[in-house]
Amino acid sequence: MRFYDCAGFPNPDRVRIALAEKGLLDSVEIIQVDVAGGEHRSAEFLKRNPSATVPVLELDDGTALSECTAITEYLDTRNPPLLLTGETPRRRGLIHMAQRQLERGLLDAIGAYFHHATAGLGPALETYQIPEWGEHNLQIAARTVQKLDETLAWQGYVVDDEFSMADITAFAGFSFAEIAGVDLMSGNTNIKRWHGKLLSRPSFSKKTDDADQR
Amino acid sequence: MRFYDCAGFPNPDRVRIALAEKGLLDSVEIIQVDVAGGEHRSAEFLKRNPSATVPVLELDDGTALSECTAITEYLDTRNPPLLLTGETPRRRGLIHMAQRQLERGLLDAIGAYFHHATAGLGPALETYQIPEWGEHNLQIAARTVQKLDETLAWQGYVVDDEFSMADITAFAGFSFAEIAGVDLMSGNTNIKRWHGKLLSRPSFSKKTDDADQR
Repeated sequence: MRFYDCAGFPNPDRVRIALAEKGLLDSVEIIQVDVAGGEHRSAEFLKRNPSATVPVLELDDGTALSECTAITEYLDTRNPPLLLTGETPRRRGLIHMAQRQLERGLLDAIGAYFHHATAGLGPALETYQIPEWGEHNLQIAARTVQKLDETLAWQGYVVDDEFSMADITAFAGFSFAEIAGVDLMSGNTNIKRWHGKLLSRPSFSKKTDDADQR
Repeated sequence: MRFYDCAGFPNPDRVRIALAEKGLLDSVEIIQVDVAGGEHRSAEFLKRNPSATVPVLELDDGTALSECTAITEYLDTRNPPLLLTGETPRRRGLIHMAQRQLERGLLDAIGAYFHHATAGLGPALETYQIPEWGEHNLQIAARTVQKLDETLAWQGYVVDDEFSMADITAFAGFSFAEIAGVDLMSGNTNIKRWHGKLLSRPSFSKKTDDADQR
């Protein structure tokens, strides 16, 4: 398998963490895509992913998967047990629900803020911005974080007391907030504790080492 | 199980169709939520779904699932075979990828157009609108539809030649476009053929009958 990555970017990091959690990081070839340089919009990359998004996971038969949830579904069901997406129907439902809510309400909301209300990836790539829309999304993110802190007051992870892909999505949201220069963490003691717990997992803390190796 | 529905609305219809495809429509209690009247924002409904979205599927143990993909995952894995979400890891990845792309690029894009650039659900509910953002999303939807028509030129369904939840998502996108007064269908002969094929499935055509019974 080939993992088209962009080290340090929040969405590729979701796949990197999923690969590490599944013990598959060593069985993929990692290819860096220069998103800041616009490589994801090159004709060659578009052949692989017409949506021009990174990450992409290319399977050995040439199938190219994009979208983090889709890649995570593939990896998790390929190598059971279903640690990331849930073993029971009820838990699968809860994980997909939390994943989607945190994707929309936190990660994508911060993405909208970053791309619309800040310099984002710079004038060459940010050719369409509505600053007001970006600011509105920052408020959405702040509300999502407040709810999440309440949730994490009485349970260890985003869904009940077990780690799942919904934790990865939320973690990526906070990483993106840091990139965007937004502090969503301070004052939220439950989130801080949960975030520290994630960082103590090898798959999360490993991130920097991997980047160094490249 | 209880299905909190809003008949004729595109997202609740995704769950209605999923229930019908799984042969579960008769085993749920259907409760209509008056979205046009703002019932989804009432204190009682928010206890069930703090995100204030419809549909919601309430399980017999009281667990409330929102988000269509999550509900579909629950229903599909509860009653195998995995008709809607895919039996093999590869197909699961492809279905989740197409589902998400069509959700973002078609269904949610039309939703943004409807809520931002038209009267939407009326002044009492549409308290925040950026018309320019709505118009931009209509262009996104048009591009998604163009790509979809090309895809459906050489395969019977959105993912390969087999029906899946990605077809339901796209179908809901066209229903929403109709509600929003946008014609995305004409000229796209492959989409028209595919749409007609979906309407010939009992779970899709049944929609009107069910609404009549209520």
